Amino acid sequence: MLDLHPKYLIFLGGAESADSAKTGRGIAHWRPELCVGEHRLSPDAATVGLASMSVDAAVAAGAKTMIVALTGIGGKLHPSWTPTLVAALEAGLDLAAGLHHKLKDQAELVAAAARAGRHLIDVRVPPEGIEVGSGRKRSGKRVLTVGTDCALGKKYTALALHKAMTDKGVNASFRATGQTGIMISGAGVPMDSVVVDFASGAAEMLSPDNDADHWDVIEGQGSLFHPGFAAVSLGLLHGSQPDVMVLCHEAGRKTINRYPDHPIPDLKTCIRLTTDMARLTNPNARVAAISLHTGKLDEAAARAALAAASAEAGLPAFDPIRDGGAGLADAVLAAEARS
Amino acid sequence: MLDLHPKYLIFLGGAESADSAKTGRGIAHWRPELCVGEHRLSPDAATVGLASMSVDAAVAAGAKTMIVALTGIGGKLHPSWTPTLVAALEAGLDLAAGLHHKLKDQAELVAAAARAGRHLIDVRVPPEGIEVGSGRKRSGKRVLTVGTDCALGKKYTALALHKAMTDKGVNASFRATGQTGIMISGAGVPMDSVVVDFASGAAEMLSPDNDADHWDVIEGQGSLFHPGFAAVSLGLLHGSQPDVMVLCHEAGRKTINRYPDHPIPDLKTCIRLTTDMARLTNPNARVAAISLHTGKLDEAAARAALAAASAEAGLPAFDPIRDGGAGLADAVLAAEARS
Repeated sequence: MLDLHPKYLIFLGGAESADSAKTGRGIAHWRPELCVGEHRLSPDAATVGLASMSVDAAVAAGAKTMIVALTGIGGKLHPSWTPTLVAALEAGLDLAAGLHHKLKDQAELVAAAARAGRHLIDVRVPPEGIEVGSGRKRSGKRVLTVGTDCALGKKYTALALHKAMTDKGVNASFRATGQTGIMISGAGVPMDSVVVDFASGAAEMLSPDNDADHWDVIEGQGSLFHPGFAAVSLGLLHGSQPDVMVLCHEAGRKTINRYPDHPIPDLKTCIRLTTDMARLTNPNARVAAISLHTGKLDEAAARAALAAASAEAGLPAFDPIRDGGAGLADAVLAAEARS
Repeated sequence: MLDLHPKYLIFLGGAESADSAKTGRGIAHWRPELCVGEHRLSPDAATVGLASMSVDAAVAAGAKTMIVALTGIGGKLHPSWTPTLVAALEAGLDLAAGLHHKLKDQAELVAAAARAGRHLIDVRVPPEGIEVGSGRKRSGKRVLTVGTDCALGKKYTALALHKAMTDKGVNASFRATGQTGIMISGAGVPMDSVVVDFASGAAEMLSPDNDADHWDVIEGQGSLFHPGFAAVSLGLLHGSQPDVMVLCHEAGRKTINRYPDHPIPDLKTCIRLTTDMARLTNPNARVAAISLHTGKLDEAAARAALAAASAEAGLPAFDPIRDGGAGLADAVLAAEARS
């Protein structure tokens, strides 16, 4: 478990896009009661909808920890953030982050934390003792969210699916694999920071043997169709040995985000290749449904996009942000029951 | 470049199988002129065919470096080796190794090296400054060896192919991705020790832009069909953006080595899935030939196995250990010319 003390001040730096603020948005959405506000370095930066707040005002409002809640490609700490991070430590806040660049590797932050008697909490540190993946079949049931790309709802889908399954009385656990999910749930394995030889082994640790009727709802990472991040997706897929997968996509997205020369394959192709690769460690693996991000569309256009995705994929399609996770949960349970 | 001083004493510990001695075998085969002998902890241990030699005899014969030339699953340093490693340092040898466990992380070895004024050389350390893979198309031509499993000739095939292409006057570079290849060639990127988010980016660094007629001959790692190591294979495949691939297989091998519950798919399936995944970063990628390890067969059985593999795959099949790399080189160049 992480030693994260609420309440949180959500630090958004100069986040230039909603995508780069997704860690903050996730915490604000799933744990609003733990957040006092957000702090941005520029009025143009993306917001996550919390009250805008100075470090001192956040301390007065009861904040104990400032969470560096940005994602950048490659997960770097930006040097322009340092004065604010030092000021937060000096004002009495712990600092937590989940970037590849560790807080504890920054001499200025280490010195400021020591002066102020505060803690630096790096979320993206893999557990000790990861072994090479064994491929051994484990007990219990598993559902993994997979994506046609990054940043289109794999974490949200898993959280909504977990909530809906729990609401239906299913014995289920959310298994976090990224910085935001880990901050939300207080546990997990940061898959993208594991050494590649141990990627599937790390995923095996995340969902150990369990009761026959227990479901692990595993947060996906990356995409098999992403030129930078397919390796983490494949290691997670093989180690998760999912019985059921939900394929996440965004309506209208034609190319990989930030990779305009890389088209996303059609849904049928994504389903076929994902299933082919998944069957290495679970011969019964199948995609049960499409989770379609329709946030850029109005209601009528969203319904049309869901119908089109369902027809294209030959599977039910849902938008859990718009409609909650109940439909997805039914599709997952029905797919497993057919096996 | 590595700071490895010949001549080498090849340390084989108690290597229980020829597979676990493959680093030693590779160095002894491709750089025999740099080796004085081998040192084993047990007469039952695998040999690489060099003269058996004590540490002191090796020093007298001109050895400057003892190479820990074993591979274990997970790449661990075995505690039973420590007395011999310390004795080698005290006798005046540097120590080099390419396991996941670093020599420089072993306090006893660090202390002994300091006392003796010798060096500890960890080959399996990724370069600084690796970025997330960009997917950008690079100039020059690339051939990658891929495998149906581990330990069946991807490195040997790449080295033999590189030699044959060079013999034909082709402008070609061998690109090492594992400890043995790096020790043989003195350069490379240890793919399996890279953090998984940067796997394809590391592979992109390994074969940068080059002359239009230049070939990078890239050593493959793992297998897309291995429950533990598929992630590294996919990152290397995407980052290498190969024009041509050679699929390596061992005649008669039906299941993944050490994973008896995991059958190897048939050659056609392996070719189809490898090609499907490769086309994400190179739409012209294709498998040109089969490299078949026939070392366990007599000549007649080997010829029959090569004919059967060729018929099954619909591609030419060669055993470079038996016949050299010329046939493979012709197949690779012909496949590229057809594009």
